[in-house]
Amino acid sequence: MKTGEMAKLTQLIDNDIFRAYATYATIVLLKMMLMSLVTAYFRITKKAFVNPEDTASFGKGENAKKYLRTDPDVERVRRGHLNDLENIVPFLGIGLLYAFSSPELSTALLHFRIFAGARIIHTFAYLIPLPQPSRGLSWAVGYAVTISMAYKVLKTALYL
Amino acid sequence: MKTGEMAKLTQLIDNDIFRAYATYATIVLLKMMLMSLVTAYFRITKKAFVNPEDTASFGKGENAKKYLRTDPDVERVRRGHLNDLENIVPFLGIGLLYAFSSPELSTALLHFRIFAGARIIHTFAYLIPLPQPSRGLSWAVGYAVTISMAYKVLKTALYL
Amino acid sequence: MKTGEMAKLTQLIDNDIFRAYATYATIVLLKMMLMSLVTAYFRITKKAFVNPEDTASFGKGENAKKYLRTDPDVERVRRGHLNDLENIVPFLGIGLLYAFSSPELSTALLHFRIFAGARIIHTFAYLIPLPQPSRGLSWAVGYAVTISMAYKVLKTALYL
Repeated sequence: MKTGEMAKLTQLIDNDIFRAYATYATIVLLKMMLMSLVTAYFRITKKAFVNPEDTASFGKGENAKKYLRTDPDVERVRRGHLNDLENIVPFLGIGLLYAFSSPELSTALLHFRIFAGARIIHTFAYLIPLPQPSRGLSWAVGYAVTISMAYKVLKTALYL
Repeated sequence: MKTGEMAKLTQLIDNDIFRAYATYATIVLLKMMLMSLVTAYFRITKKAFVNPEDTASFGKGENAKKYLRTDPDVERVRRGHLNDLENIVPFLGIGLLYAFSSPELSTALLHFRIFAGARIIHTFAYLIPLPQPSRGLSWAVGYAVTISMAYKVLKTALYL
Repeated sequence: MKTGEMAKLTQLIDNDIFRAYATYATIVLLKMMLMSLVTAYFRITKKAFVNPEDTASFGKGENAKKYLRTDPDVERVRRGHLNDLENIVPFLGIGLLYAFSSPELSTALLHFRIFAGARIIHTFAYLIPLPQPSRGLSWAVGYAVTISMAYKVLKTALYL
């Protein structure tokens, strides 16, 4: 690898818009990853498993089988996790392209910050749970931010 | 941020192959996001919810509880949404790397257009639903396009 | 498109760290895509379908309806597929940003190789299935690698 190319990659991370994207993309992905730990926590404390091999430590036969069950709290976290996937994947893809579409730095930061905030509020609204429309509104805000970035990408890059 | 780096990011969006990727990636992500709205539409019109807090506006107790149920149309849209995630995530990742693997512009456009078309047909085939093998074939076409791009990426970039 | 820009994109794929990322990202995505084929294989051999239109070739009425059922092996593969989505999406996003955060090539390769190895072992542990903690440990290794890359990204790029 030539030094010039290494420098080129380094320069990208020196770009403020790309750095902001990197920061907020990493934050929302870490938040999404946290859902795995919350699911595991509830599966263990509620003793509600789905794979027979996961209950082997509880003994054999009927004794272990009774822990193969669904639990409302586990299912709630899993729905939150899936909702994250459905909304954070578009943010990752469209957000990266948006960072390359020459937005104003302040506008880009506004988009990234609102999206990350909305998804964090959405998680609390789902897990506590808060009464509606808390969850619905926080979902809609993240959705609208992604649409706004998609509009900018298509306006800048459209090539069909 | 120095002006030179800003220019560098702007130049990437001036590259035709990257612009084509940005366009089609945004289109398929927007299509995937549409599935959330379709799910919400069927949940509301079919009165089929999964979270107790979502049925609070229908009253309390048994009156609200009867709307906590699964509906075949809602489940169908959700399966289509998950299938999108399973197939559009590989396209996003492999497609971006493919755009950097120096394909011919016309070949790249062919890949992106066929993938986007196949996923749009897949959605109609799933939601209407059309008789098989409509859904199976449209799924397979998108899958094959992604494999073809993966082959080009590995041929160009392989570094184990 | 000017030749200079084409060259610029080509140079990115000449960077060893980016090439390593491209290689391992493509490998784990292809592995994830394989889960679709395994699901289809079990659905067909176990005759366990979820969409009425998929059983039309088995005849009409009750004769076809009996194949609309869940099968433990099919559900197991689907859980493995979803677990892939939950873990490979963060790797894709954080790994790309990590590749731009000037890691040592050897350190980057270590991260990518361990992640890909862990996810391949996770798949075997889930599908065979191997006794716990095989699946749990292979999941945790991939998770820890992603966290380590996220730490490097935030340390290098943090811009809130």
